[in-house]
Amino acid sequence: MNPMFTAQLLTLYPDMFPGTLGQSLAGKGLDEGKWALKTLDIRDFSSDKHRSVDDTPAGGGPGMVLRADILGMAIDAARAEAAPQWPLLYLSPRGRRFDQNEAVRWKDAGGVTLICGRFEGVDQRVLEARGVEEISLGDFILSGGEPAAIAMLDAVVRLLPGVMGAAETLHEESFECGLLEYPHYTRPVVWEGREIPEVLTSGHHKKIAEWRRQQSEELTRLRRPDLWSSYVRGKKEAKD
Amino acid sequence: MNPMFTAQLLTLYPDMFPGTLGQSLAGKGLDEGKWALKTLDIRDFSSDKHRSVDDTPAGGGPGMVLRADILGMAIDAARAEAAPQWPLLYLSPRGRRFDQNEAVRWKDAGGVTLICGRFEGVDQRVLEARGVEEISLGDFILSGGEPAAIAMLDAVVRLLPGVMGAAETLHEESFECGLLEYPHYTRPVVWEGREIPEVLTSGHHKKIAEWRRQQSEELTRLRRPDLWSSYVRGKKEAKD
Repeated sequence: MNPMFTAQLLTLYPDMFPGTLGQSLAGKGLDEGKWALKTLDIRDFSSDKHRSVDDTPAGGGPGMVLRADILGMAIDAARAEAAPQWPLLYLSPRGRRFDQNEAVRWKDAGGVTLICGRFEGVDQRVLEARGVEEISLGDFILSGGEPAAIAMLDAVVRLLPGVMGAAETLHEESFECGLLEYPHYTRPVVWEGREIPEVLTSGHHKKIAEWRRQQSEELTRLRRPDLWSSYVRGKKEAKD
Repeated sequence: MNPMFTAQLLTLYPDMFPGTLGQSLAGKGLDEGKWALKTLDIRDFSSDKHRSVDDTPAGGGPGMVLRADILGMAIDAARAEAAPQWPLLYLSPRGRRFDQNEAVRWKDAGGVTLICGRFEGVDQRVLEARGVEEISLGDFILSGGEPAAIAMLDAVVRLLPGVMGAAETLHEESFECGLLEYPHYTRPVVWEGREIPEVLTSGHHKKIAEWRRQQSEELTRLRRPDLWSSYVRGKKEAKD
């Protein structure tokens, strides 16, 4: 079977992969060949005996910068094996924010090439010369791109058909319809004096659906005014 | 030596930890006892012979919900070992967004208790009864909280004194001053016909600093209008 999705990782720490992706249902899908993970060690493209890949920043300052020539060769080796439609991305807090739409885009492309940085950063010229997009996990600094790559790939891999079991359903409610998810409850019916909301044990499917929608709307309005505005705008446009 | 920071993880997949946190400088800090990672297997709090922890959602629908009674016992066991000021958080896309300020908050507290969900979600009553905050890695769905926990902890652990080596400096530029980071360059001076910007090889420290600031401002203005607005507002208030 050909994998439905292939992740190429350019990294100085190939042993960090598959990490959490090697376990649970993502790991099962990997073992079964539903998706594939290929690491390229950037150090393999160094030409000196110390396998060095970085140098001091031009203009001074702390830290070290990954060299354009070495990373350029690593990228070229990866892209020779990649389909042209696979996104080529550098994980960086300067990039646009990863979100569910981005996860779907990678899945639909059938693969992705991810560059995991360490040190102070990478030489800007290689990003420009190879048309590398920058993608960010959020407004915080990591020790390197690897933990971000694993989190993003987890979001992608779970979308592949047959990777999630029936028990762990694709619950896209949170972002598919633009609202946060309603609260969940299960047995016991009473716990520490707290009861499950009556409507949920009523058996009235329509009332349950209404209650859940109201809860989702209320939660989104309170917690995420940004999502709430888009949702209200979308509803209004659908009406007009 | 007492650890400077302790992460408690409530999970159904304790083997997913330390993951990437066990390698590179974070892993070295863990081995040296600079920080500590403690996993609690939520299944250990199940009372039936199948070690089941979940049940069907009240009101119907797909997936399974983590039970309040079982998770409640796991939380109580963790908190009995925690300092009261450690945040108690459930990883969920409904939560407020994790960012650099949140990373600093956890580091300053000296520890954190993180609940990693799987399945459809957790019973809402346990979040309310135990005062659990919700925290999100971003607007996307993961197979569980574990990859998110690892990414967040990476951001925290690298802030601990002595964990990052001199070579991998704490480059907080991106969010400390509210701007994205300027581009980096290193040798070779010419690569594929592309030169390092002249100012960086000029030796004029003041001009270099000015150029970098301009680059940071321009990048932030173009890519992150939200950060740019806050930055401009902050500068104006400082002037007034």
